[in-house]
Amino acid sequence: MEKKIPYKIYLSEDELPRDWYNVRADMKIKPAPLLNPATKEPMTIDELSQVFCRELALQELDNDTKYFPIPDEILSFYKMYRPSPLVRAYFLEKALDTPAKIYYKFEGNNTSGSHKLNSAIAQAYYAKKQGLRGVTTETGAGQWGTALSMACSYFDLDCKVYMVKVSYEQKPFRREVMRTYGADVTPSPSDTTKVGREILERFPGTNGSLGCAISEAVEKAVSTDGYRYVLGSVLSQVLLHQSVIGLEAMTACDKYGIKPDIIIGCAGGGSNLGGLISPFMGRKLRGEADYRFIAVEPASCPSLTRGKYTYDFCDTGKVCPLQKMYTLGSQFMPSPNHAGGLRYHGMSSILSELYDEGLMEARSVEQTSVFEAAVQFAKVEGTLPAPESSHAIRAAIDEALECKKTGEEKTILFGLTGTGYFDMVAYQKYNDGEMSDYIPTDEEINKSLSAINI
Amino acid sequence: MEKKIPYKIYLSEDELPRDWYNVRADMKIKPAPLLNPATKEPMTIDELSQVFCRELALQELDNDTKYFPIPDEILSFYKMYRPSPLVRAYFLEKALDTPAKIYYKFEGNNTSGSHKLNSAIAQAYYAKKQGLRGVTTETGAGQWGTALSMACSYFDLDCKVYMVKVSYEQKPFRREVMRTYGADVTPSPSDTTKVGREILERFPGTNGSLGCAISEAVEKAVSTDGYRYVLGSVLSQVLLHQSVIGLEAMTACDKYGIKPDIIIGCAGGGSNLGGLISPFMGRKLRGEADYRFIAVEPASCPSLTRGKYTYDFCDTGKVCPLQKMYTLGSQFMPSPNHAGGLRYHGMSSILSELYDEGLMEARSVEQTSVFEAAVQFAKVEGTLPAPESSHAIRAAIDEALECKKTGEEKTILFGLTGTGYFDMVAYQKYNDGEMSDYIPTDEEINKSLSAINI
Repeated sequence: MEKKIPYKIYLSEDELPRDWYNVRADMKIKPAPLLNPATKEPMTIDELSQVFCRELALQELDNDTKYFPIPDEILSFYKMYRPSPLVRAYFLEKALDTPAKIYYKFEGNNTSGSHKLNSAIAQAYYAKKQGLRGVTTETGAGQWGTALSMACSYFDLDCKVYMVKVSYEQKPFRREVMRTYGADVTPSPSDTTKVGREILERFPGTNGSLGCAISEAVEKAVSTDGYRYVLGSVLSQVLLHQSVIGLEAMTACDKYGIKPDIIIGCAGGGSNLGGLISPFMGRKLRGEADYRFIAVEPASCPSLTRGKYTYDFCDTGKVCPLQKMYTLGSQFMPSPNHAGGLRYHGMSSILSELYDEGLMEARSVEQTSVFEAAVQFAKVEGTLPAPESSHAIRAAIDEALECKKTGEEKTILFGLTGTGYFDMVAYQKYNDGEMSDYIPTDEEINKSLSAINI
Repeated sequence: MEKKIPYKIYLSEDELPRDWYNVRADMKIKPAPLLNPATKEPMTIDELSQVFCRELALQELDNDTKYFPIPDEILSFYKMYRPSPLVRAYFLEKALDTPAKIYYKFEGNNTSGSHKLNSAIAQAYYAKKQGLRGVTTETGAGQWGTALSMACSYFDLDCKVYMVKVSYEQKPFRREVMRTYGADVTPSPSDTTKVGREILERFPGTNGSLGCAISEAVEKAVSTDGYRYVLGSVLSQVLLHQSVIGLEAMTACDKYGIKPDIIIGCAGGGSNLGGLISPFMGRKLRGEADYRFIAVEPASCPSLTRGKYTYDFCDTGKVCPLQKMYTLGSQFMPSPNHAGGLRYHGMSSILSELYDEGLMEARSVEQTSVFEAAVQFAKVEGTLPAPESSHAIRAAIDEALECKKTGEEKTILFGLTGTGYFDMVAYQKYNDGEMSDYIPTDEEINKSLSAINI
């Protein structure tokens, strides 16, 4: 029996999850192990600890521990902005005139503007605990870099951010937020690393890509004393930290008798989608409930829907471990025409495996239709969404309109990962009618896929 | 007895105020009436209805009705983003090592990024109810314009915004948010009005001011069929709508046994400060409790601390009614050096009267110290504050540090009116060490004051 549902469900502080949930523990087929690119053997904890903090490396390799206690310091930071609200989209339902019930878990109520802070604070914590001086990272749309800057400032750690060049130029204000929190921000590719210099030589005038910024950040970390590299998505440790989103959403749903039929998230590297669906997927894997899960990716960077499930490098510079995943090839460069994040060539190995087993669906959407959904949502729900999040909005609206056709009263839950306040250049393009779609040709994708050479 | 206080107190939807509170009803000396500039007689409801919607004009003139029921349509919109959290600043207290307990009422969790939406939706509602086609307004830092754009979009009303030129240029992304919500935005002064053309002629290259943008918006409203003018601050109707801030804060305080000793707000025209303190001031006026109230204004535009309590025009173009208030003179142009809002030459007549009677204190602060407080706050509390709000943060920190000296465990409540995501140009200046202070000389202020000529 459903209770009366308020517009926003805020759990109390006491209802914050005490543990992160590791969906790998419930997966019958585990994600394939990370491989050492030199030996092609599974990465050992010692090898991985050269790049990541040791405790994070342990989390990365652990396919069996179901719950990881959230350290008190992180819990107390979470209380700054969590629990995040689960919102009933009454206004959107009315505007769509749909019998569907639409909910979204909103992660944008913090200065980083997205869910990224959930993992940033965890990674900064373990770096501090290990006695490191600082961390390096890459950022695409800038959300992860902002989140990490905030987290490092909190723990008084140095923070060096390589920001994808096109974002660095389109989002100067993101850079200032990071600087306000004390971070160094370098546009990538840059001449501050060997791999950056090589890429600049091979592709002069390149807009950069996440894969390339990752290479630079990793190189800087392993070549600087007292530094490690941290990453905002793709990795299993990140999905673990982000499970706090799904755990809160599940608690709120259970509390109010809400039973989602469809759970939707945008997918770049998979951090938000993985975090949101993990606990629900756990129930599905344990046979306790059933849900449809939908990953929504941009048509311009369609790793799940048009990529290949294979081992590949996580970065353009080929300095990272090999990961088995859906990939477009580590040399894939998304069109600069594409606004916002979700520009990554690969996908979380956990999500890749779940997708490969048919436990999750995927679809790709074109950006003009994404911005159309974003503006529609902003006007009725009051929140101007990030372009990334708006991929999920697009799919949620499409599913709700489908319900309108069929008359089904489905319950749809989607992840609203963040706000679009730093994406106004893209909105301006859309407002001016100057936004277009770009779908890579089969030839382009085949070329990039056939360049995969591990 | 105080209960255990969570980091964030969220009231439930059912605890949303059902009525706005009109502090004038409890004031022994009422604010002086608005005067018709031609006759110098008190404005009648019919005269005022030429400029404002009739119901808003009635609210403006009503010094006696204590509670105004909030219409259902507005209540339902409020549920999109209200109740807003009352936050215990545990992290800031720790950073300051103060015995003081610090709370802030945070109004930035909505796309307009500030409390302005509380009155915008009310004013748009009454305009719609009256069957108008649209409204005009001015905006300084852009928060009010954004809020009104959102509100008009919700009720499908035209929205014409005159944006102070310096803000228009410094905040191009604000303009895009407004456009996304369907508003027309014009930099002021402009050649679209008679008063704008005159000001441009007298002060070529001017940065504009709120007073001047108001004149343009009023002229456009009264000269366009089916339009009225709406204003985001200063007016008594606005303080009435903004009382929702104080009512929620008071409910939350009462619920948790929190007894503020000092209540602090930034003051430009007075909308946030007036809204926050109104219900508490009511208790003080009725002898039920006592509080210190502190208005914090920029040293570059110090209407309370260095202005004169007298009748003056609300706008540079002298098209508005005369209001008795603390004013620097309607011809006062704040230094372009000053970042953000709070650039208005006058002050709410309600707050002016309360200040004149000694029921409220005022102080002015310089902007470099304001940004210092902003950055300190952002780093520990996680929210990057608007420059306007940071005036209140400055004073709250100063009071907390005073408690540290004296050992007093005072309870401080301040209004955190909004976020600074569209103020990164100002933050960049501060980060680069290029921000300076500007305090008008006595000569400048005397010149402007002596130009008051009603």
